Amino acid sequence: MKIPVVKNILEANERISLELKEMFDQKGILVINLMSSPGAGKTSLLEKTIEALKDKIRLAVIEGDIQTTIDAERIGKYGIPTVQINTHGACHIDGNMVKDALPSLNLDEIDILIVENVGNLVCPAEFKVGEDYKVVILSVPEGDDKPAKYPLMFQESKVLLINKIDLAPYLECDVEKIKREALKINPTLEVFPISCKTGEGISAWTEWLLKAWEKKKSS
Amino acid sequence: MKIPVVKNILEANERISLELKEMFDQKGILVINLMSSPGAGKTSLLEKTIEALKDKIRLAVIEGDIQTTIDAERIGKYGIPTVQINTHGACHIDGNMVKDALPSLNLDEIDILIVENVGNLVCPAEFKVGEDYKVVILSVPEGDDKPAKYPLMFQESKVLLINKIDLAPYLECDVEKIKREALKINPTLEVFPISCKTGEGISAWTEWLLKAWEKKKSS
Repeated sequence: MKIPVVKNILEANERISLELKEMFDQKGILVINLMSSPGAGKTSLLEKTIEALKDKIRLAVIEGDIQTTIDAERIGKYGIPTVQINTHGACHIDGNMVKDALPSLNLDEIDILIVENVGNLVCPAEFKVGEDYKVVILSVPEGDDKPAKYPLMFQESKVLLINKIDLAPYLECDVEKIKREALKINPTLEVFPISCKTGEGISAWTEWLLKAWEKKKSS
Repeated sequence: MKIPVVKNILEANERISLELKEMFDQKGILVINLMSSPGAGKTSLLEKTIEALKDKIRLAVIEGDIQTTIDAERIGKYGIPTVQINTHGACHIDGNMVKDALPSLNLDEIDILIVENVGNLVCPAEFKVGEDYKVVILSVPEGDDKPAKYPLMFQESKVLLINKIDLAPYLECDVEKIKREALKINPTLEVFPISCKTGEGISAWTEWLLKAWEKKKSS
């Protein structure tokens, strides 16, 4: 009984995600579904990305959290449109939650919308939210065996950001191994080692993001 | 439609977990359900725990992973009974999976059974597996806002291990704040700051574990 029900939920979500995608395409909005384990640096990455791009492009953020508005408050300070979704216990954001958040955004004034998912390296990979690309952050303290152990997340993503590389000297974690293992699972993955603390590598990521938006705009 | 189905799955699991718990109680086995985000240090804690207790008590481990046998191989080296569960994509271990693993263990020769759950700070908190206690590890690099953001895990747990305290000097993370916030959510939580790298704090945890087993044995 369990499997067909889960399949129906996924199929229903797929339909809603397609509707969302069509609408975002019409408006020319690039949508990123940003995912990671708890504390890998999703909100810190958003802060760095907003700092780098806020004068070049119109960004907006949907903040997904199980509870609290801690992240939305951090992002709200930058003066860009931010909507909070509280999932009330659910382990991921789905298409319906994003749909419900849209009336709070003016879609005619957004170039790139970033959806910060719930901190979870497993479940969010199964639920599309109308995105162009999934982006996963893996932080160095989590260890270099994680792509092999959580493969779906790395299969589904277009970009892997390896965060907290400033901590590498204090850890037994091989950044090159993370890259190698992730590319074994998904050879088309774009990989950027970054540090949201020192700013290292952030410009390579924001350039990729700008190019992805320009490509979408001109298509 | 979605909520009743989920409720049924949880209720069915509750029944299986109760059956398991009764059986473990009869055998006098203390069962720990060990949970955390990916890479917080569950397997490293097991290694340290086995090193400290293997001559005092008969330990066994059930290793839960989505894929791979990386962790079971790490634990297998210690020569204690170890069973691997691969969840094939599922984000948590449930009672049925533990039930299926039991024929591979001789329950008459086990004092403490530790179930290492899938790396996930959300979903495993909802599924009992016949345990006496849930134990959660939060690692310092994940940040001190995590108890507030993932409250169910901290509500459900008996013990919080704050791991990787050796990294605290390199991070903007307040170990005391983690403790304070976690105790706000669950005032009965036992909290041990530890480092699986340096060994700091491990003996306080293993003493707690031994006492919990002695208490169960004499009850």
